[in-house]
Amino acid sequence: MSFDALYGLELTDCSDSLVRARVPVRAELTQSEGLVHGGVYSAISEALAARGTEAAVGLEGRVAVGLSNLTTTLHPITDGTIHATAVRRHRGRTTWVWEVELSDDGQRRCAVARVTIAVLDP
Amino acid sequence: MSFDALYGLELTDCSDSLVRARVPVRAELTQSEGLVHGGVYSAISEALAARGTEAAVGLEGRVAVGLSNLTTTLHPITDGTIHATAVRRHRGRTTWVWEVELSDDGQRRCAVARVTIAVLDP
Amino acid sequence: MSFDALYGLELTDCSDSLVRARVPVRAELTQSEGLVHGGVYSAISEALAARGTEAAVGLEGRVAVGLSNLTTTLHPITDGTIHATAVRRHRGRTTWVWEVELSDDGQRRCAVARVTIAVLDP
Amino acid sequence: MSFDALYGLELTDCSDSLVRARVPVRAELTQSEGLVHGGVYSAISEALAARGTEAAVGLEGRVAVGLSNLTTTLHPITDGTIHATAVRRHRGRTTWVWEVELSDDGQRRCAVARVTIAVLDP
Repeated sequence: MSFDALYGLELTDCSDSLVRARVPVRAELTQSEGLVHGGVYSAISEALAARGTEAAVGLEGRVAVGLSNLTTTLHPITDGTIHATAVRRHRGRTTWVWEVELSDDGQRRCAVARVTIAVLDP
Repeated sequence: MSFDALYGLELTDCSDSLVRARVPVRAELTQSEGLVHGGVYSAISEALAARGTEAAVGLEGRVAVGLSNLTTTLHPITDGTIHATAVRRHRGRTTWVWEVELSDDGQRRCAVARVTIAVLDP
Repeated sequence: MSFDALYGLELTDCSDSLVRARVPVRAELTQSEGLVHGGVYSAISEALAARGTEAAVGLEGRVAVGLSNLTTTLHPITDGTIHATAVRRHRGRTTWVWEVELSDDGQRRCAVARVTIAVLDP
Repeated sequence: MSFDALYGLELTDCSDSLVRARVPVRAELTQSEGLVHGGVYSAISEALAARGTEAAVGLEGRVAVGLSNLTTTLHPITDGTIHATAVRRHRGRTTWVWEVELSDDGQRRCAVARVTIAVLDP
């Protein structure tokens, strides 16, 4: 079992320029105030960026590894489903940059992330 | 059960200026290459920053909520224990800023994070 | 004279949700390799975010002040004009979040920034 | 003339692990409220990180280029001198990471930055 399975990532689309997923909220994803833990947004964001990058570089035998992740929380989520969309903003030789938006069931943007993925030779 | 319990946070020190914790590595914390998932570093960092802030503002009936989290991964961890130390760098009226270092059993610095916590009236 | 005048900001559009500007490249904006200095991208990004926020909150007598600025450089610019577009991503009571894109004359995206602006009572 | 000269960087120490500089505040460095412009803090931070990296990699004929820069403003500066200290936190093969602190004449920490520098073959 991986970390993505532990917190419940459900990938719905995955290409090298757009990745979508959802994560059902449950008590195990919250912090002491009952809000979804900020680390969940960071984890989802990094997962989507890495998988989108892998969709291309994996075919060349190269590996995608998270380098940096800035997650900004805008509104709390307490229940329902987290909806995440990652869009590629830069495709370099050794780094890819993705923007990720996370929203709630009411389509309110609740967190945004910028994730840089390193592309390495194995 | 909270998210911190799900991934296995073990808090060892907690004051409003310094927080320490450890997280044993297990398969459920890794991504597809067997490395600890970057989201785990982000989650630990945010947890420590929030708890350190709560140590002070909770006494005043105020609430600490994650606002932004930049986690930079330096070296992979694949096994053993993640050791985390958060040091407060700024204590404002509405925001606190923390620096977090995460290292492996060999005391190699493996990730660093800067976390901003918002302090809100309930 | 302000810093925006010193480096040569030319604002072309400014509303509370979209701000555009350009900056002509000259030797005084470069670093030792002849590339535009990363600090120029950061300065432009922060200026646009602050001015867009001020466009709304200034009317209420409130003040917009930069809180955090993550600028990621994607491609170098060495001459011509820097074109910058800032789009608001979040409008909170005390913080606004903007995404900024900076491109060269060939419409290549050369840097992206995420800027958080604090809105304060004077 | 370079951008560092334009805003007035005065380097006082420069090694591959520690760099110090100061910048006298003048009207040309401020924004509309009379505070030092956030872009000045970003520019200083990126300059110090790049110069510290160059101190080592320049000898090998390699080039240091800014990759990402997160600057967080803590307190305003309106006059006097900006004092900046950059400490290296990571020295990788292709990326170096630096933490920068900027303070005022009263030794109050006014901004902090995390800068990642890419090291490239020319």
